Amino acid sequence: MTTHFEATSRTRLRRRPARGAYDEASVFAILDAGLIAHVGYAEGGAPRVIATAYWREGRTLYWHGAAGSQALRAQAGGIPVCVTVSHLDGLVLGRSGFAHSVLYRSVMAFGNTHEIESREGKRRAMDAFLERLYPGRTREIRPVHDAELDMIAVIALPIDEASAKVRGGGVNEKEEDLAGPGWAGVIPVETRLCAVRTDERVAGVALAASVGAYAEGAGLGAVLAKNARTHPA
Amino acid sequence: MTTHFEATSRTRLRRRPARGAYDEASVFAILDAGLIAHVGYAEGGAPRVIATAYWREGRTLYWHGAAGSQALRAQAGGIPVCVTVSHLDGLVLGRSGFAHSVLYRSVMAFGNTHEIESREGKRRAMDAFLERLYPGRTREIRPVHDAELDMIAVIALPIDEASAKVRGGGVNEKEEDLAGPGWAGVIPVETRLCAVRTDERVAGVALAASVGAYAEGAGLGAVLAKNARTHPA
Repeated sequence: MTTHFEATSRTRLRRRPARGAYDEASVFAILDAGLIAHVGYAEGGAPRVIATAYWREGRTLYWHGAAGSQALRAQAGGIPVCVTVSHLDGLVLGRSGFAHSVLYRSVMAFGNTHEIESREGKRRAMDAFLERLYPGRTREIRPVHDAELDMIAVIALPIDEASAKVRGGGVNEKEEDLAGPGWAGVIPVETRLCAVRTDERVAGVALAASVGAYAEGAGLGAVLAKNARTHPA
Repeated sequence: MTTHFEATSRTRLRRRPARGAYDEASVFAILDAGLIAHVGYAEGGAPRVIATAYWREGRTLYWHGAAGSQALRAQAGGIPVCVTVSHLDGLVLGRSGFAHSVLYRSVMAFGNTHEIESREGKRRAMDAFLERLYPGRTREIRPVHDAELDMIAVIALPIDEASAKVRGGGVNEKEEDLAGPGWAGVIPVETRLCAVRTDERVAGVALAASVGAYAEGAGLGAVLAKNARTHPA
């Protein structure tokens, strides 16, 4: 079994090949640090991009929504999609406008969707999603009802092609600009967890063990990545 | 001049209309709090989604990149795109799996792209982008070189249709589940600025005034939104 995605005409980075990676470890690390994907597909011949929560199992991505959703109805039939996940890591200011940039990690994944149609398939998928986010959560709450499963659609995307693209580092500047005026550097950014807001109707119920890793000030990506490692879907 | 986008068959929210908005203020507030958009388009008949930094001027979105970029070459010719900007605001845990959700703000914008071809047009656009991000920045650094303008492509998207979708609030749960076991509540998340990393080659140069608003711990969205209000592009 290969641990690389084959670099294809649509995934191979042409301009800055050093920023690209096609190995599973690089691609999965970026996917596993994320919660929201942007799914592009055609509807009535026109492009459409929906933001959706997703999760990964092996080389397959999943997302779900209301069974009646126009987007999910389109995807359920099996259509080509491009799923892009991106993390903004910082702003770069150079001594020239040209050297201003952003730091990021991103993945583009291509494939054809299909729907998980059976109740048992949907139940397994949704439980896996909950456990992937909040390890142990399915044992803290009641089982999902059949009627609830009937209200959702679960879409699977076996990844056919994927690439990762990462811009790290600092200011990339031409030698001749180094003497120029103005501050230069990086402003890192991170998506962090804030203090939990307990629902007032469960006052007195202890914070769930499954939520323990989501500590105030922790990086969301780090928590998601760790849970993916310790409790893969 | 209308201050609403017309709700069309592809922007009107059908399932949860209360979450949708079509007025400029709602759409622009979400766009102005963001830096990275996901641009969906067709390339060779297949969907493709690129993550890119963007900015807004009135009802037009802009982004740029290397002139030789395959994506920008495709968009320069004038093609239909869907630009989606999303902000993740929190994780919602309910007492049922079904009530688990996320808090978000998002915008979908549709239109046809065109390229800003002239050097003067590109210079103006890129300066506006810098000023929109870092008010006063263009006066802190040297002017952009013609050769640099020739190396980039600038894409404009006059927005034809747009809608905002916002999921705020807390746990939406069925009455019958309120007595269930398990903690319930919201884990808010926010993209925050970290301490700046000054480029070691400008040691001794004071932090630029244009960067002053990017204080450690501030929310990136709040800083971007404020700069858009006080220094619109």
